[in-house]
Amino acid sequence: MTASTPRADLVDAAALDLTRDEHLREQCIQSEQAYRGHFLDVRRDVVRLPDGEQAPREYVRHPGAVMIVPILDDGRLIMERQFRYPVGQSFIEFPAGKFDAHEGGLVCGMRELREETGYTAKRWARAGVMHPVIGYANEVIEIWFATGLVAGERKLDDGEFLDVFAASSDELDAWARDGLLTDAKTLVGMLWLAQWRAGRWPLTWQDVAQP
Amino acid sequence: MTASTPRADLVDAAALDLTRDEHLREQCIQSEQAYRGHFLDVRRDVVRLPDGEQAPREYVRHPGAVMIVPILDDGRLIMERQFRYPVGQSFIEFPAGKFDAHEGGLVCGMRELREETGYTAKRWARAGVMHPVIGYANEVIEIWFATGLVAGERKLDDGEFLDVFAASSDELDAWARDGLLTDAKTLVGMLWLAQWRAGRWPLTWQDVAQP
Repeated sequence: MTASTPRADLVDAAALDLTRDEHLREQCIQSEQAYRGHFLDVRRDVVRLPDGEQAPREYVRHPGAVMIVPILDDGRLIMERQFRYPVGQSFIEFPAGKFDAHEGGLVCGMRELREETGYTAKRWARAGVMHPVIGYANEVIEIWFATGLVAGERKLDDGEFLDVFAASSDELDAWARDGLLTDAKTLVGMLWLAQWRAGRWPLTWQDVAQP
Repeated sequence: MTASTPRADLVDAAALDLTRDEHLREQCIQSEQAYRGHFLDVRRDVVRLPDGEQAPREYVRHPGAVMIVPILDDGRLIMERQFRYPVGQSFIEFPAGKFDAHEGGLVCGMRELREETGYTAKRWARAGVMHPVIGYANEVIEIWFATGLVAGERKLDDGEFLDVFAASSDELDAWARDGLLTDAKTLVGMLWLAQWRAGRWPLTWQDVAQP
């Protein structure tokens, strides 16, 4: 093996102060709406950089979303398959959907799971959040786990078409390894699932009464 | 434990034909540029849905990007910390950057790693791709692993400010568990790293001559 050479000035993680980022921060000087469509809300801002210079910043404003990792008693996951027009292909995904106005994460997760798959869940746990597009959107996705699943009728939005199916985590892993599962949020859900099952990333469960 | 009830009509993954998605596909009827800024290129299309109805679709056109998982000989990873204005906070990330015109994945990965961190790498492996924003962008991120790292001078773009540091995968895992690491692409890189180190997702390495 060829030895590699680290930088003499390479900082170790232990020396990082994650509470301080003044040397990196950008301040908003000016903000305007650049485009407002049926769906996309694009902002165009001017920022002051850490060195005092100015720069433009454009990004999509997003209401945020919830992704659900729904686990059947036999350990399989409830998954969806949906055509995603921007990319031009169908994707295997965990159920997910955008927040309605003034909606909390659990309420949004319960609603989206029921509408898209027909399932309600008796126990829920909020794993954490992810930021899928930090370069050009403010979107945040809350990650919720759901167990105690009970089947019911699904209620898709007009114009929404998707397959619902069950898969084991071994099947998801094989699809990801082989390039058949490439949706980033779903891959992050698989990371959370593996770490939780290995006892490394704990979850705090709450019982939820069905509406 | 309360028993859950799967849907009687729940399809098992083994019954899925992933090569067929005619019942999900949307066809482009019309396409126009909705907005073109310094950075964002927004399209507004009309599509024909599987049931024959029409619907609008808006999305960001993106050149694609490469993310690098750079591994030192002692197993630590070369990481960055950068302020991301759309979200308004600093993020711990694997090095990444957008494609320049006509640039392949390896060339882009070598360039971005060198410019942002100063490192060159003797061995590279293409793990796969991820799609971070399937709802409203066509962005694809190639995931490359890099070893045999040799330090050099970094060359940041004007107005680019970032910390470079080394961290173990245990440190990354703890940050993700505690909500301090939430960038989706980086979490997907951690999934690939864990699966590769566990011998489950293999990589094919190539030696690369330094320029």
